[in-house]
Parts: sequence; structure tokens; C-alpha cells
Amino acid sequence: MADRSAVKDALRAQRIETPSWGYGNSGTRFKVFAQPGVPRDPFEKLADAAQVHAATGVAPKVSLHIPWDRVEDYGALAAHARELGLEIGAINANVFQDDDYTLGSVTHPDPRVRRKALDHLLECVDIMDATGSRDLKLWFSDGTNYPGQDDISGRQQRLSDALSEVYGRLGDDQRILLEYKLFEPAFYTMDVPDWGTAYAHCLRLGPKAAVVVDTGHHAPGTNIEFIVAFLLREGKLGGFDFNSRFYADDDLMVGAADPFQLFRILHEVNGNGGFAPEAGVAFMLDQCHNIEAKIPAIIRSVMNVQEATAKALLVDRSALAAAQNAGDVLGANEVLMDAYATDVRPLLAEVRAETGRDPNPVAAYRAGGWAEKIVAERVGGAQAGWGA
Amino acid sequence: MADRSAVKDALRAQRIETPSWGYGNSGTRFKVFAQPGVPRDPFEKLADAAQVHAATGVAPKVSLHIPWDRVEDYGALAAHARELGLEIGAINANVFQDDDYTLGSVTHPDPRVRRKALDHLLECVDIMDATGSRDLKLWFSDGTNYPGQDDISGRQQRLSDALSEVYGRLGDDQRILLEYKLFEPAFYTMDVPDWGTAYAHCLRLGPKAAVVVDTGHHAPGTNIEFIVAFLLREGKLGGFDFNSRFYADDDLMVGAADPFQLFRILHEVNGNGGFAPEAGVAFMLDQCHNIEAKIPAIIRSVMNVQEATAKALLVDRSALAAAQNAGDVLGANEVLMDAYATDVRPLLAEVRAETGRDPNPVAAYRAGGWAEKIVAERVGGAQAGWGA
Amino acid sequence: MADRSAVKDALRAQRIETPSWGYGNSGTRFKVFAQPGVPRDPFEKLADAAQVHAATGVAPKVSLHIPWDRVEDYGALAAHARELGLEIGAINANVFQDDDYTLGSVTHPDPRVRRKALDHLLECVDIMDATGSRDLKLWFSDGTNYPGQDDISGRQQRLSDALSEVYGRLGDDQRILLEYKLFEPAFYTMDVPDWGTAYAHCLRLGPKAAVVVDTGHHAPGTNIEFIVAFLLREGKLGGFDFNSRFYADDDLMVGAADPFQLFRILHEVNGNGGFAPEAGVAFMLDQCHNIEAKIPAIIRSVMNVQEATAKALLVDRSALAAAQNAGDVLGANEVLMDAYATDVRPLLAEVRAETGRDPNPVAAYRAGGWAEKIVAERVGGAQAGWGA
Amino acid sequence: MADRSAVKDALRAQRIETPSWGYGNSGTRFKVFAQPGVPRDPFEKLADAAQVHAATGVAPKVSLHIPWDRVEDYGALAAHARELGLEIGAINANVFQDDDYTLGSVTHPDPRVRRKALDHLLECVDIMDATGSRDLKLWFSDGTNYPGQDDISGRQQRLSDALSEVYGRLGDDQRILLEYKLFEPAFYTMDVPDWGTAYAHCLRLGPKAAVVVDTGHHAPGTNIEFIVAFLLREGKLGGFDFNSRFYADDDLMVGAADPFQLFRILHEVNGNGGFAPEAGVAFMLDQCHNIEAKIPAIIRSVMNVQEATAKALLVDRSALAAAQNAGDVLGANEVLMDAYATDVRPLLAEVRAETGRDPNPVAAYRAGGWAEKIVAERVGGAQAGWGA
Repeated sequence: MADRSAVKDALRAQRIETPSWGYGNSGTRFKVFAQPGVPRDPFEKLADAAQVHAATGVAPKVSLHIPWDRVEDYGALAAHARELGLEIGAINANVFQDDDYTLGSVTHPDPRVRRKALDHLLECVDIMDATGSRDLKLWFSDGTNYPGQDDISGRQQRLSDALSEVYGRLGDDQRILLEYKLFEPAFYTMDVPDWGTAYAHCLRLGPKAAVVVDTGHHAPGTNIEFIVAFLLREGKLGGFDFNSRFYADDDLMVGAADPFQLFRILHEVNGNGGFAPEAGVAFMLDQCHNIEAKIPAIIRSVMNVQEATAKALLVDRSALAAAQNAGDVLGANEVLMDAYATDVRPLLAEVRAETGRDPNPVAAYRAGGWAEKIVAERVGGAQAGWGA
Repeated sequence: MADRSAVKDALRAQRIETPSWGYGNSGTRFKVFAQPGVPRDPFEKLADAAQVHAATGVAPKVSLHIPWDRVEDYGALAAHARELGLEIGAINANVFQDDDYTLGSVTHPDPRVRRKALDHLLECVDIMDATGSRDLKLWFSDGTNYPGQDDISGRQQRLSDALSEVYGRLGDDQRILLEYKLFEPAFYTMDVPDWGTAYAHCLRLGPKAAVVVDTGHHAPGTNIEFIVAFLLREGKLGGFDFNSRFYADDDLMVGAADPFQLFRILHEVNGNGGFAPEAGVAFMLDQCHNIEAKIPAIIRSVMNVQEATAKALLVDRSALAAAQNAGDVLGANEVLMDAYATDVRPLLAEVRAETGRDPNPVAAYRAGGWAEKIVAERVGGAQAGWGA
Repeated sequence: MADRSAVKDALRAQRIETPSWGYGNSGTRFKVFAQPGVPRDPFEKLADAAQVHAATGVAPKVSLHIPWDRVEDYGALAAHARELGLEIGAINANVFQDDDYTLGSVTHPDPRVRRKALDHLLECVDIMDATGSRDLKLWFSDGTNYPGQDDISGRQQRLSDALSEVYGRLGDDQRILLEYKLFEPAFYTMDVPDWGTAYAHCLRLGPKAAVVVDTGHHAPGTNIEFIVAFLLREGKLGGFDFNSRFYADDDLMVGAADPFQLFRILHEVNGNGGFAPEAGVAFMLDQCHNIEAKIPAIIRSVMNVQEATAKALLVDRSALAAAQNAGDVLGANEVLMDAYATDVRPLLAEVRAETGRDPNPVAAYRAGGWAEKIVAERVGGAQAGWGA
Repeated sequence: MADRSAVKDALRAQRIETPSWGYGNSGTRFKVFAQPGVPRDPFEKLADAAQVHAATGVAPKVSLHIPWDRVEDYGALAAHARELGLEIGAINANVFQDDDYTLGSVTHPDPRVRRKALDHLLECVDIMDATGSRDLKLWFSDGTNYPGQDDISGRQQRLSDALSEVYGRLGDDQRILLEYKLFEPAFYTMDVPDWGTAYAHCLRLGPKAAVVVDTGHHAPGTNIEFIVAFLLREGKLGGFDFNSRFYADDDLMVGAADPFQLFRILHEVNGNGGFAPEAGVAFMLDQCHNIEAKIPAIIRSVMNVQEATAKALLVDRSALAAAQNAGDVLGANEVLMDAYATDVRPLLAEVRAETGRDPNPVAAYRAGGWAEKIVAERVGGAQAGWGA
């Protein structure tokens, strides 16, 4: 049996990073639905993130997205974060929301556009320096919509050149986290469509480059936990962008669509040493809350990761190994399922209570009055959102 | 062998409807890229559509989308169309771009929102009356994002009620075309996710309701031509929304992603009487041209449908039937592939020349100077687009 | 809150039917792996099934597969079942394992083959008469591998003719359960590929025909519980073939791949009256146990259905409806997830104990010595399996 | 414009390898349908392959599958091949048809089984020595069916160990071709599920290891030509297993399901130097002909590859590059589609006639009387098939 007190220690030590854009408005290509009380600037996003951390105790880091979170003084933003008990997480570069990027950014056929995109990536490293961020998260929307539109190999070369230049600019403790995605917004080819492509580029770049697994970025039928285990084994898992989906990149709350998959992923993280701080795995959310209240949805998402983690930690790993080595298919599966079937909410409530927090983070948030406060106070101005 | 002159007659008789929104700006949830010269209002969209018809000779109908194409005087719009040699095709209702519709339109839990949505549908029938349109095309973005969010059966009841009321309002020569879609923008359930659901509702409604097959709205692995054959056999195929896709509802140019599939679909149309006028099948495009020039892309799409149609018409159906009945798997497949392998571009060039058109519609369009003219003249104002 | 004693009553009343072929050897196209102790005939299969019923108390029915379970005297087989405390469930027709069926059975282009297949279906109704079975389960492997191979509509007509003749032969209390499947073993088209096709045929046939949902027979991304809700609402859900899969029709133990999906399906069953005896829904397993011990795998599967059922029954439906009607997305989802997160194993242990059974059915089975007994005694003869 | 005479030279130089198992019986898990005249041993398979080569002139190589093609004297088999104008192609190891391999072969938890499997792989290298084969093609059915069944990382380590030992045994001109497959026959994890895994292992092994792309082994939505371009760019594309599919690993005739995809793949081969002999890319078929006549189906498949190759060679690459560099989306796509729309059958007929062959290989085969001859002569004995 997993040691209950070690499990609780691990749960207390876990850190889950929330995304600044999760606090703003979002939507589909058909409509962005507005919600009252949504932040108007990065400072207000951080204020909302502080509520999530206050309720859960495990979410002190906040990812930024540039230019959505562009400010005059990044030092001031980082200081504001610290005052709220937060720190700046990954810096997400955005080279997909400018008419210049119609045909790509760092892989664009036109060198002028590539230079512009690359300069933005380098600017993001400056922002990392200014904010103390460790990770540059790179997701490229680059790709093509039609067969023949551009040269697949040529685009790989341009991508490789751009990554090399950014890698050379990294400080000693800074990393590139390279994300992959099967489809969208490019429909025929994405330039980094799968983990193999991201892995090959990271391998060539060196030890400061690692792969990010976004749980919504795979083809149907893909075994994500296999990829996680493989990358951990190779020392190339940089982190997660957690969310969930039923068909495409739905960006629903993590654990909402397939909680068993989330558990299996975290079981591989656990079994391959990914919860150890030295593994350097960043546990980030990357979600949209198009129709549900945003702050409680993020709190719920943090809790979903915690619950799946608790179940993964509860797996009786020695019993599991024994059954596996004996070729006992049903027995091994049963060990895993026993942990999954466990209701871990009381355990997590205990962990929270022991650290002075409300056992029910959503209820605690609701009781605090923040939702009413921001609706009342955040009047006027432009609500933050994708593209805003 | 298929009779060459009959094939040419059929090609001359074919009509392909283009969508007003295909002439405006569009994009993904990440970015709508703007193009110079894009129409600012429905009248300019019709002017662009007239260029497509001038170049191809088979595209006199234009679908409208309400409220994107809302005007003060629909009679005037229809008159404008007639002056351009066009007519108004399907009226597409839009009940998905208002904050009220965050949780649905005709299936919304709140009766006030349902009433509002229903009133919009009825308004669309008024517009049909005013413009002479035959078809009310209904695509509902309605659905839910999270398990439990709403009651699946309850939503079916509300949908059924709304459809009945609209059906009762139809004139003698008017139809409801009900569209289905597997996913997006609702992520957990769409309220009309598949042809079976659309079919069941149309069956209940009566003879003036039929199903629309959008070629991009199916799960991976779905055999679309089976559905087409089945619906034609049951007299319930109302029409097509043509486009193509590699993964999701990419809305690429029809025939761009899988031209063989398009051919197979049109082969079933042909084999099941769907090209006959009395079948009432509407051959509509429903596409977005996010990164490519819009008018030539629509001309190319019309040509792609024509080429696939020509190949379908060239299938030696008596040889095919003989091989099928003999259980000659390879022989039957070969008959079909022979038609597909044929280069039908010379045949179509001939058809065009015989009707006094340029054999190369794209070149003819380019030579006409329209592209330059609209870039020069359409300055200022708000470009049309999704949501505009 | 759901009433705990009503939940227990419902769990006691539930009946789960096990498949005779699940007790025999099975495999993939690459290899059927043999296991010691496997039954050599239908009588031994029933003996194994009796073990499952003894351990669980909810599995008294056994589906047969003809000709895999062909015997001289079906009356004797049914009597044997009764002696074991069992009864004969659905009769599964098999028209796919004869060289004559290379190109199909009831949809074959050759009328001689169609007649042969139809005669087999009628023979299965005879077997229903002899065994007291209520349900004729029809899954057709019919379809085509190559475009053009046969006429899609022509095959629908032949299918329709065959179904009509069988329907006419049914007794008053007998039903046709028509199954659908997206793919395999026909690769280009299946003749009954989706629920819409099965539904349309059943509707035409009449009240004694209903659709079977095999949980492994859908395209990726399909929302199965939507189909379940829809069919229940229309009175056309005949039953389930339960199993689970990660990619294709893997036929793994139900609940093994996506336990949350199983829960959602059973939640729709519950919400739409499908647990009521008068709904006539047959809860059948259709699984293969290629590499795991068969009897304990079936016990585990029965338990998985029970656990998912228990969670579905525990959903606080009035709280759910209140949240749904209020448009409270997170609240409604939370009500559902609360039930899912509950560890229902203690509740089921209680139900078992109260009915005089061991709270742990797998352990009880293992303690009984049956596994050792059959390995020792079932020596010689041909092991039952697919095709045997 | 592509130079017509260079295109013809390239078509004449192309070599397509046919699989010995394609000449034998095959089927699905439900049924292997027998065909008259099917070979009873590897010598007869080679005789059939010689017919394919005689008809097409481009298929002199035949892949073997051990133990399906096990003979006493491999030297004699190779000599027999040479007498028929053939040579032995890839040796396919088979470690999936023995009860020992129920839980895997080289990744099995039991070292005894691993040793047995490894010994088989080494035996295959012996057979390569004896037959002059260059390539050891490794496809592992290894994997797990249930979460928890075995340790994903542990299995990778065992795989890595086995591959290293085989690699060490290779002669100077011998290669390992490592194949990947998303699913089947293992349902939860395959141990080599995707190109990334195969690539990482090949990279570690060294220059004599390369990846095989089986066109049927990917998740829905995967862009196969991207993988081809990427691997060619990295010097790690060892070859193809050509076939086609609509949903799973259907093993239909290549080009039958999506001829445009085949064209795109071969366009990437062409653009990235893959047709050059020094690239070392093996163009192999890996198909099953379950319901169609086998030899003509293989001839047709060879022709399908030739036709797609011809179209790929006809692409006007300088016009393509110009349009790509200019960012002309429609223009670049049009250049590609122009080549695809071309009917290349006359060109290939010309190439065949110029080399003294019948322009119509299928007709030539049928006229030769071989089909009737083998049906008459191959009476008695056990027909070759999967597992035989």
C-alpha cells in the first residue's frame, strides 16, 4: 500500500500553474461570449489567480501570454505578483495574431515575417529576464491549409533556424518548452504536429529544450500516457498543458472529459519520477472557460488535477510490479483500478485542513465574495480576451 | 460507356449555390485575417457572386445568412440579385452569435431565449417570402460542453417543438433543410449531432423537411456517400453543404482534401437519381477562405464539383452493375476507378466553350480585372465577416 | 439526494446477460491464444456462466451464438440452463463464417446466398422457440471493401427484404434486436454502419424491432449516451452489447477503457426510464478475453456495470435538474461528478452481503476452486472459440 | 514542366516489392475466406510473384515472412527466386503467433520469452545472410491490453535491449527497418505506436537502422506525408509498407481508399530525394486480399503506385517553388492539382510498351492463363495463409 503520509506530503508539495488567459473571455470561431467581472488587464488577471491560490494553496504560478499580457513594466508586474503571493510562470509567445502571420511566423516563406516573429520570441526571453520566468513556451500555429501550399521540409529548416537562435539567447536557468499540435489552426499540416517532431527538435537543440504535452493536441486514439512515459524516460518532458476534450482542442476543464485518462497520465508521471522537483516538469493548465464562470472553473480544474494525482499516488506500486512481473493481467489492472475507484476527496480535504485551508475550495471562494466584487468593480474598459 | 452528350447536358444543367459568407472575411478562433477588397455589405457580396457565375455559368444562386446579410429591404436585395443574373438561394438562420445564446437557442433551458430564437427562425421565413427563397437552412450550434450541463432528452423535446412551429409557418413551396454536425461549437453534445437525429426529426415533421449533408460534419471514418445513398433512397436528402477537411470542420475548398471522396459522393447522387431536378437536392458550398483569395477560391470550388460530377457521370453504370452482380470485386472497382482516373478538364472546357464561356474560369476571372477593381474601390467601411 | 434504499433495490433488480462466446477462446486476426480449462461445448459454457451468476447474483441470462452453440436438442440445453439457475438470453445469428458469405449474407448479390442466410435467421427463431429466448440479435458483417464493389442502395433493399421476412416469423413476445457497426469486417461500407440506419429499419419493421447499442461500434468522438437517450426517448432501444475499446472494436472488459463514459451512458438509461422492466432494455456483455482469464474477467465486467449503475443511481436528480434549469453549468456538472467520484464498492458489498453473497465476487470465485477444476477436467476435445 | 523523358526514366527505374503473404489466404478475426489456386509453400508464392513481375516489369523483389515462409534450405529458395527473375527482399520477423507471446515477445515480462523472441530475430538475420536480403523488417505486435497490465517504461527498456543485440549482429550492408503501429493487436498500448518512438530507437541504434512507414498504421487525421518528409530530411526513412484503409489497418490495395494521399506521399518522396537509389528507400506492399483475386489485385496495386508516382514526377516543381515562395496559396495548390488531375495511364502504357511489355498488365496476366493453371494444379495440400 502507498504510504498515506507520503501521499499527503506529495499533495502538499504539488504546484499547478494557471494561465492568465483562462481568466479572460474566450470562445469558438463562432462567438466569444462575454462574462461580467472579467479582468481588463494583466494586473487584474493576477488578482483573480491569487483567489485560486488562496482557495487551493497549490497554484502560486501564473503563465503569461505575450502580447495579451503586454505591459510597460514587467518588473512591476512581477512585483505585483509577489505581493499577491504569486510568481510568474511560463512566458507564452504569440506569433499568430497579426495579419503578417497569415501564412506562418517563423516558418513563413518571407524572411521579413520570419524576422519579425523571431524578434518577438527574443522579446519574450527579455520578459523572462524581467519577470524571473524560467520557461519560454512555444506553440506555433504555423502550417499550411492546402497540399502544395508550401514546402514541408523547407518549413522545418526555417523552424530549426529560429529555434536555434532563440536557444542561443537563453540564460543558464531558462528553457524552451516546445509544444506540438495535430491540427488547428493550420488544416493540412501543422509544422510541429506531434511529439516526435517536437522531440527531434529539442534533441538537436540541447538540454535546455524539452517537450510540452498539451492533453488536447492529439489524434483520436492516441495513448497520451505512453508519450509521457517515453519523454520522461528520455529526460525530455518539460511540462503539461492540461485541459480536456471530447473531439478537438476543446480546452475544457482538465479531467472533465476523461478523468481516467488524466489519472493514467499522472500514474506515468509518478512511476517515472515526474513529480520530483529535479525532473523539472511544469504542471500547467491551458484552458478556456467559454460558458462557465471562470475562477471557480479554474479552482475545480486544480482540484481535478489534485484528485487524479492523489489516486495516482495511492497506487500500490509494489503490488502492481509484482502482478506485472507475474504476467497477471487482471491482477495488475485491478491494482490500478483500486486506486482509481477510491474516493480521494476526504484525503484532500484533510490535506487542506491541515494547511489551514477550507476543505472545499469552491465553497470557500464563493463565500469570499470575490465574484460579486469584481462584477461590481470591473465596470468599463475592455475585457481581456484572446486577441485583446 | 456513359453517353458523352448526355454527360455534357447534365453538366450544363448542374447548379451550384455559393454562400454569401464565403466572400467575406473568416478565420479560426485564433485570428480572422483581413483581405483587401472584401465586401462591406450583402449587395457587394452579390456582386462578387455574379463574378463566379459569369466565369462558370453554373452558379446563379447565392445563400444568405441572417443576420450577417440583414438589410432593410429584402425585396430590393432580391431585385439586385436578379439584375446581376442571380437569385437568392437558401436562407441560413443564425441563432448562435448573441450572448443570450451562451447555453443554446431553441434548446436553451430558458423559455425566453427559446422564444427569441424561434422568432428569428420565423423572421427567416419572412425573408424567404420576400426574396423568393425556397429553403430555410437550419444549423443549430446548440448543445452542451459538460456532462450533466443539461438534459439531453429535454433539449430534444424543445428542438422538436421549435421545428414544429417553424414547419407550420412554411409556405407550400418552402422547405426546412436540417443540418447536423458531430461537434463544435458545443463540445460534449451537439443537439443535432448526426444524420440519424436530423432524419428522425425530418420524418416527424413531414415532406417539407429534409436533411442537409455538410461534408465536413462527420466523425473520422464515416462513409458519407453511404448516408447520401440512404437519404436519397428515403427521399430525405435536401442538399449538400460542400467543403472539405482534413481533421475537423476545416471548411476548405470542396475537393481539396479528398477529391476521391467527393467523386464517390457524386457517384451515389447520380446512381440514386439525385441530379434530377425533381429530387430537389440543393448543391451548396459552405466554405471559408481564410488565407486564400476568396473569389478565385470559390470559382475553383465550383470547378472541383463540376470535375467530380463529370467523373461520376462518366461511370459506365451498366458495366458496373454487371460486375457487381457477378461478384467481380476487382472488376467493379476498376469500372469506378476508370472514370475517376479520367482527366475531365478537356470535357469541361468543351462544355464551357460551347456555352460561350472561357474554358478556364479562373483565368477568365483574373483577366477581367475585378480583383483589382474591388481592392481599389472598396476602401473604408467595415469588411463583412463572420459576426459582422 | 438519491434514496439509498431505492438504489439498493435497483441494484438487486438489475440483470446483466453474459455471452457464451466470452467463455471460449478468442483473439485477433493475428492469433487466437489458447487458455487451459476453456469449455468444449455449450453445456460447459453454461457451467462457467453459472459460476458468474453464483458470484454476482445478477447474471442469470446467457446469450447464445449460432452456429457456435449449435446442439442437437435445444430443449435439453435450455433445461440444462434452468438446472444451473440460468436462462437462455438472446440468440445471436451468425452469417459471416462460411465461404459463401465472402461478399455478404442477406445483402449478397447472389439470391442463393441470400436465401441461405435468411434460412439461418429463421432457424434462429426456431431456436428461440425451443429455448424460450425473447431476442434475436442480428449483427451483419455485410458490406463492401472497395468503392464500386456493390450497390449501396441495392444492398439496403435486400437487407430490408430479409428483415421483413424474419420479422414476419417472430412470435408475439419475440423481438429483433438490430445491431450497427461503423467498420470491420467490411472496410469500405458496412450495410448497417450506424444507429440511424438501424433505427430507420426498425421503425419500418414495427414495434417488435429495436436497436442494439454495442459500445465499441462507433466512430471516434461519437457521444454514445446521446444515442442512448435518443433511442430511449423514441422507444427504440432494445439493449446494449457492453464492452470497451481504445481504438477499434477491441472488445475489452466493459468499463476498462473509459469508466466515465459507461457511467454517463447508464446515467442516461436511468434518466430516460431504461432501468424499468417495461422498457425492455437488455443489458448484455459482448466481450473477448484474449489474454486474461475469462471467468474472472466476466465477473469483473459484471461488477463494472454494477458500479457504474450504482453511481448513476446515486446522482441527485432533483439537484441536477435545478442546476440545469438555472443554467448553472458548473453546478450541474458538479452534481454529476459528485456521484461519479463516490466509491460505491462498499454499497455494492452491502447489497451482496444482504442477499447472502460474498461481498467480493472475484475472491469468492477464486476461493471456490472452479478454475483449477476445469483445468484439470477439461482435457482433450476441441476448445470452443470463434469459428468453432 | 517536368521533363517527360526524365519522368519515363524514373518510372522505368522504380522497384516495388511484393509480399509473399499477399499471395496466400488472409482475412479478418471473423473469417479467413479461402480462394482456389492459392500457393501451398514459399516456392509457389514466388511463382505467383514472378507473374506480377512479368506483367509489370517493376516488381522483382519479394518480401518473406518467417516462419510463414520457413524452408529447409534458404539458399535453394533464393536460387529459385533468381531462376524466376526475382530476388529476396525484406525478411519479416514474426514474433506474434505462438502462445508464448500472449503478453509480448521482446518486451514480455518473462526473460525466457524475450530470449526466445530474440533468437528468432537473430535467426532472421541468418536467413538474410543465406538469401542475400538487405533488410530485416521488424514489426512488433507487443503491447498491453489493459491499463496497468505492464510497465510502459520497462517495456521500452526491454525493447531497446533486444534491438541493440540484433543491431550488433547485422552485417555491413544489412539494415533494421523498424515499423510502428498505433493499435492492434494490442489495444491499450503498442510498444512502438508511432514514428516518434521508432525514430528515437533508430537514432540510438545507428546508421543501419531506419523507420518503415506503413500507410495503414496511423491515427485518423495524421498527415503521413509530413512524416515521410521529416524522416527523409533526417535520413531515417527506410521504406514503406504500402496499403490503404478507410478506418483501421484494413490492408486494402494501396491507392484504393485515398489515391490523393498516395500521390501526396510520393510527391514528398520525390521532393526530398527519396526516389534516388542512394536514399535506400524500400517501396514495399503490405496488403491482404481477403475477398478479391490475389495476383491481379497485386498487379493493380503495383500500377496504383506507378500512377501516383507518375503524377508526383509530373509536378512542375519550379512553378511550385515559385508559387510557394510568393505566398500564392491557390497558385501553389493548383500546380500540385494539375499533376494530380492528369490521366497518366497513357504515359505508363507507353513506358511499358517501350520495354516490351503489354500496356495493360492486368489484361496481360489474365490472357496468360496462369489463374486457371494454378486452380487446376494446386489441388490438395494446405493453402498458405496467415499462421500457416
